[in-house]
Amino acid sequence: MTLYGYWRSSASYRVRIGLALKGVKVKHVAVNLREGVQISEDHLSRNPQGFVPVLELEDGTRLTQSLAILDYLDHAYPTPSLLPQDPVTRAKIRAASLTIAADIAPIQNLSVLKYIRAEHDCGDTEVKAWAAHWIAKGFTALENIAQAYDTPFLMTDTPTLFECCLVPQAYNARRFGVDMDQFPKLKMIDSACQKRAEFQHAAPENQADAVTP
Amino acid sequence: MTLYGYWRSSASYRVRIGLALKGVKVKHVAVNLREGVQISEDHLSRNPQGFVPVLELEDGTRLTQSLAILDYLDHAYPTPSLLPQDPVTRAKIRAASLTIAADIAPIQNLSVLKYIRAEHDCGDTEVKAWAAHWIAKGFTALENIAQAYDTPFLMTDTPTLFECCLVPQAYNARRFGVDMDQFPKLKMIDSACQKRAEFQHAAPENQADAVTP
Repeated sequence: MTLYGYWRSSASYRVRIGLALKGVKVKHVAVNLREGVQISEDHLSRNPQGFVPVLELEDGTRLTQSLAILDYLDHAYPTPSLLPQDPVTRAKIRAASLTIAADIAPIQNLSVLKYIRAEHDCGDTEVKAWAAHWIAKGFTALENIAQAYDTPFLMTDTPTLFECCLVPQAYNARRFGVDMDQFPKLKMIDSACQKRAEFQHAAPENQADAVTP
Repeated sequence: MTLYGYWRSSASYRVRIGLALKGVKVKHVAVNLREGVQISEDHLSRNPQGFVPVLELEDGTRLTQSLAILDYLDHAYPTPSLLPQDPVTRAKIRAASLTIAADIAPIQNLSVLKYIRAEHDCGDTEVKAWAAHWIAKGFTALENIAQAYDTPFLMTDTPTLFECCLVPQAYNARRFGVDMDQFPKLKMIDSACQKRAEFQHAAPENQADAVTP
């Protein structure tokens, strides 16, 4: 299988974590978002949305949207499972994951930041404030939820779909200057993840296309 | 079960469609988003995000995030299924659903529109243009995908999770003045849905808390 992704894309990062947790090796192809390669004809033929990641299966089938890809991987490579078996806990893990993937991340996506820069005359300070606002808002709700559990990962003893989403979002939080000390439980979960080889393997700075500042 | 929702909330609308397709009856409690009831202490105790919908189960468990709720309902009430059995088609239906629920909807969510109005000095025209921009961008990609299939619904002969997402988003598209004629296949699927009693039952204007203009 081939994963078309970008080192700093949080959706690509999520899928890389899922693959690493399952021990599944894929070929990585970089789509340089800073250079606009995502809207090249080649990439649009892979994904008409012009987004990464795209997971290309052996038969050429292309899957998009990180959460749909992770669900597919959970079916194709069931062990370890990214979701608990109990339907209610499962729904709660999915909900917390969607709070990141469907509420925080899309609003501080590169295309939105570009738009507010161009159409709303936002400079660096306003762009950073925008991203930080939506991250802090979502993390405040998630911290409130996470506080109710004593487990090392959210509601569980092993990383799930939620940690696949949390770690890339915490990475973005730091990039945009959000103080993670406001979210002690989320910070603890993030740190527990960072200690694991699978998460280190998937980290942006360890990708072949990473650019050192 | 009790569904805390709002007539015009597209995430609430998605869950209402899912419940109607499955023939599951619930008690509906309106949370008036225009009056700010979503950030009342009562509602924040149901959902720290201050969002609707919230599905409260018989034992008091509260589930949030429309897609997580729909997944839970698909498990608890398996017939008719909201997702096809084939794992690849399943992943593609999930991806198309996420294109709406995780890429379009969050950016034209009420809280974002309020923020650009307050922080970016946007008036009615700019707010409408913002919403219309993101809807048209996402629908352009989805139309491209939908064109490849001859089925009455996306990739299938019966409505799925995707139609639970599409119909509320098409409703919003019309509200924000997006011309659906640009998206003939999506428009056709939306019309096929609108003819069904389940979708009519779930429609905003048929809810007890609907406000006629």
